[in-house]
Amino acid sequence: MGKVLLDMAMSLDGYLARPHDEDGGLHNWYFSPAPKSAAVIEELINTSGVIVMGRRAYDIGDRYDGYVDNPYKVPHFVLTHNVPEKPAKGETSFTFVTEGIESILKQAKAAAGDKDVVIGGGADIAQQCLKAGLIDEIQIHLVPVLLCEGLRLFEHIGTESIELEQTRVIESTGVTHLKFRVVK
Amino acid sequence: MGKVLLDMAMSLDGYLARPHDEDGGLHNWYFSPAPKSAAVIEELINTSGVIVMGRRAYDIGDRYDGYVDNPYKVPHFVLTHNVPEKPAKGETSFTFVTEGIESILKQAKAAAGDKDVVIGGGADIAQQCLKAGLIDEIQIHLVPVLLCEGLRLFEHIGTESIELEQTRVIESTGVTHLKFRVVK
Repeated sequence: MGKVLLDMAMSLDGYLARPHDEDGGLHNWYFSPAPKSAAVIEELINTSGVIVMGRRAYDIGDRYDGYVDNPYKVPHFVLTHNVPEKPAKGETSFTFVTEGIESILKQAKAAAGDKDVVIGGGADIAQQCLKAGLIDEIQIHLVPVLLCEGLRLFEHIGTESIELEQTRVIESTGVTHLKFRVVK
Repeated sequence: MGKVLLDMAMSLDGYLARPHDEDGGLHNWYFSPAPKSAAVIEELINTSGVIVMGRRAYDIGDRYDGYVDNPYKVPHFVLTHNVPEKPAKGETSFTFVTEGIESILKQAKAAAGDKDVVIGGGADIAQQCLKAGLIDEIQIHLVPVLLCEGLRLFEHIGTESIELEQTRVIESTGVTHLKFRVVK
């Protein structure tokens, strides 16, 4: 069975995005990747069996045509209270789940088979999964900027510290790719 | 003239310490360093001309005998509202400055000569210096743990994002040493 991997780009001060959805350049490395970053992206495309995201991340992706020519040709699951009326642009298959994180992860694991479930967008869903102990690995694409305000990745995750094992560090251009195993 | 270097150990979720001063294992790499970490520490000892810290960091250092056999044999400057009555244990020379960050940095630079002023303890002084644009380089010793609560390094630093240039990444055992230049 695959792993549950939290995969997100983060500023050195811990933000996923600026206020009002601007990403503050956090994905420049992704859209114009240096060779080492391209290899990290390719690995993620090859190992992901399902992409899971929150509703806010889904909407932002659609707004910027993120699902048009989407290289992640796997089922996408979106945690939401409100199923959107219009489908997203592109060929990506979306399943909207309203029952909560346990339910979405169960469905996502079944659909992913031997591949990984990648939680690839959304601070809230990431925080809920971390707090519930549902994450096996964390990959952070650490971007050299202090955004100073915005949406923090690591907060509201309880008060018990979570031990990690640093398993990989890749220094690329304008980003460092850090991988950790959650010690359970 | 030397640089002003912010040098601190930080958890992946951005904390310098747990609540109530426990460091949550953030300095295990320092007290029992792997070879690559020992080289980073030796470099810091050789390049620092002055150590600057806040009062809280100074008190914690004294409480744990951090200034006994202190390898940083340079003047230490402490920003404080209240000069302590008793000297710290050990041979380290301390100057207590009450006038604010511009004053302490001016005095520290004069004392450091061609070497670096290292801001090596205290979230508050680090934040004041970052906000005022007084930091040239940042070295973060990133420790693989989510402390989930405590004293955050990067907050209260204004609302304007601060561009960094990633200049060095050293993967060691139980820590990654990241170095950045502040783009001004």
